[in-house]
Amino acid sequence: MSNAFPPDSVGLVSPQRRAFHGPLELDSGATLEHYELVFETYGELNAARDNAVLICHALSGDHHAAGYHQPGQRPGWWDNLIGPGKPLDTRRFFVVSPNNLGGCAGSTGPLSINPATAQVYGPDFPFVTVRDWVQTQARLADTLGIECWAAVVGGSLGGMQALQWAVDFPHRVRHALVIAAAAKLTTQNIAFNEVARHAIRSDANFHGGRYYEHGVVPAHGLMLARMLGHITYLSDDVLMARFGRELRDGKLNFGFDVEFEIESYLRHQGESFAKRFDANTYLLMTKSLDYFDPAAKVPEHDLRKALAGASARFLVVSFSSDWRFAPARSREIVVALLDADRDVSYVEIESEQGHDSFLLEVPLYHRVLRTYFQQMPITADPV
Amino acid sequence: MSNAFPPDSVGLVSPQRRAFHGPLELDSGATLEHYELVFETYGELNAARDNAVLICHALSGDHHAAGYHQPGQRPGWWDNLIGPGKPLDTRRFFVVSPNNLGGCAGSTGPLSINPATAQVYGPDFPFVTVRDWVQTQARLADTLGIECWAAVVGGSLGGMQALQWAVDFPHRVRHALVIAAAAKLTTQNIAFNEVARHAIRSDANFHGGRYYEHGVVPAHGLMLARMLGHITYLSDDVLMARFGRELRDGKLNFGFDVEFEIESYLRHQGESFAKRFDANTYLLMTKSLDYFDPAAKVPEHDLRKALAGASARFLVVSFSSDWRFAPARSREIVVALLDADRDVSYVEIESEQGHDSFLLEVPLYHRVLRTYFQQMPITADPV
Repeated sequence: MSNAFPPDSVGLVSPQRRAFHGPLELDSGATLEHYELVFETYGELNAARDNAVLICHALSGDHHAAGYHQPGQRPGWWDNLIGPGKPLDTRRFFVVSPNNLGGCAGSTGPLSINPATAQVYGPDFPFVTVRDWVQTQARLADTLGIECWAAVVGGSLGGMQALQWAVDFPHRVRHALVIAAAAKLTTQNIAFNEVARHAIRSDANFHGGRYYEHGVVPAHGLMLARMLGHITYLSDDVLMARFGRELRDGKLNFGFDVEFEIESYLRHQGESFAKRFDANTYLLMTKSLDYFDPAAKVPEHDLRKALAGASARFLVVSFSSDWRFAPARSREIVVALLDADRDVSYVEIESEQGHDSFLLEVPLYHRVLRTYFQQMPITADPV
Repeated sequence: MSNAFPPDSVGLVSPQRRAFHGPLELDSGATLEHYELVFETYGELNAARDNAVLICHALSGDHHAAGYHQPGQRPGWWDNLIGPGKPLDTRRFFVVSPNNLGGCAGSTGPLSINPATAQVYGPDFPFVTVRDWVQTQARLADTLGIECWAAVVGGSLGGMQALQWAVDFPHRVRHALVIAAAAKLTTQNIAFNEVARHAIRSDANFHGGRYYEHGVVPAHGLMLARMLGHITYLSDDVLMARFGRELRDGKLNFGFDVEFEIESYLRHQGESFAKRFDANTYLLMTKSLDYFDPAAKVPEHDLRKALAGASARFLVVSFSSDWRFAPARSREIVVALLDADRDVSYVEIESEQGHDSFLLEVPLYHRVLRTYFQQMPITADPV
């Protein structure tokens, strides 16, 4: 048999599914009696069950982090990181990657049937927070027999989940890898999210979130949200280097069709996103970002106090050209951890790729992660 | 009679109007046989006609730069700069402020009647460029008997017009004040404009630009464009300082109504803009920004060569926290002018207010402009 996959790929993977019964009380006050999570795993759990790594996805991510669902398709979104011999080495670690509650890739979310109405939830799906996700991920860990993660890892909104894990379950996380994240959004971040939400909600096809019933989707709104997102995920410099002011036809056309290459790129990104992502999920995810603030309920809104109970070792990573989650935001986390006398390493990676860097194979970044995982003690390799 | 206006105000002002006949050939290849410009003037032209200053407005500006149309109303958009005793002192200078061709405040534009169809132009109004505007402003100067401007002044898109004036009519501009501008947009700038255009054009009420005929306006699209604009006009720091993460109701509501103060601000700004500004004009103005590139047609796309024929003295001003037209963009103009052996002064003003700074009474900025205008020689004061 010929193997169509590179030797450092986890190869063909299939999503798994777990159903959870018994009430889940959400931050919003709503309760879910039943929900399902879809997830993938790569590698094997060792006998001591101490080599498990949780991957937390970002705004538009899903459970398909590594490997292939079919030969010839694109691999998972963090395939450059996860695999046999890759920085997160699946010969050594058992990697678990769920789709978050409220998502649109298979876990219970707005596209699921609401048992109370026998219709899809749509806009009636409850708001979910980073804390809620951590709760559901802990239940998933229970069913997998994982008492304590070797590491919880995430970039952007995923990094927020890693941070929240260390706060909410200090004895269930040995290492928290918080990449290209922030302890809370800036006003500008919230403002961009609000524009994206407004684009979706003002789309004539949104129908108050009940677009499924009308057989349409708010594609223009989703497209706008994604176009805007892409601008903020990339640095000004990398946009200039990649697209410049190149004209697709070599000359100005004095019209509103695509003229500059950047317009073509953004429209393509927006259109393909609108075909694959659910608008209600997008709304929920942006709200979850806005709401994240682990210091909100501690005295004096003090992040140091929020982090004081964490016992994980932290690795915080930022990227020099990331202006959506700037290095200064990562340093706020680092300073709070140091002030709280926690164990933290910090690296700011030089990269021109902006916020997107966390998804890319930036050499120093991958070397840092490789070394960090190599030095992470586990009882024994699984095989 | 009591005077309701401050002593350093130009007081009550009334727009004037000029009609221009004879073909205007536009950069796009289109020709306008007839057009009108609305404008305001402040101060008096002196006998030597050498004290005239042209104000060029930015994306959403108009001819009402100073004074009041009615007592109690808000003054013009640059009222803090223009008036008796203000940095641009109307006791000394004769200030002319037109609404640009293609605008929606009275000059011929998409809202005007197309003589070819006896309907409003709407989307059939031709594209206008910065060069086209300079042509129309030169014709306006002719009718006012102004052979040479003491200064042409503008911020943002207005600064681009000041630069183009110095290139196209070197002997008709003694000073070009290029504030918070750039020699061309960056890819990121174009990308933001494209998102704004897409928001307008994908609004269900846009109707291909013929919304007037349907008795509607693409208010959601315009609102989105303006919300996005406001984010980019302000710095991250000033947004944080002004709005922070303050919750309007003091708590999370887990809903899509306004929660954070910044959301309230953006929605208000967007809604009021959608009521006062024409969508087709907005589209034209953003295209004019994207197209601006005075070096486009010179050998090797060399800005130095484009500026080599200018004989004006230049004052270039940038603001430290302006990330839409960053200081680096102003420095590109300055370096090109120096390389071309032109006369240029440059000042980078420390300000937290982002791109908006050029409209604000930033003390050092106003001191620089005051001094610059005070030292500008004119034959005699008008009175």
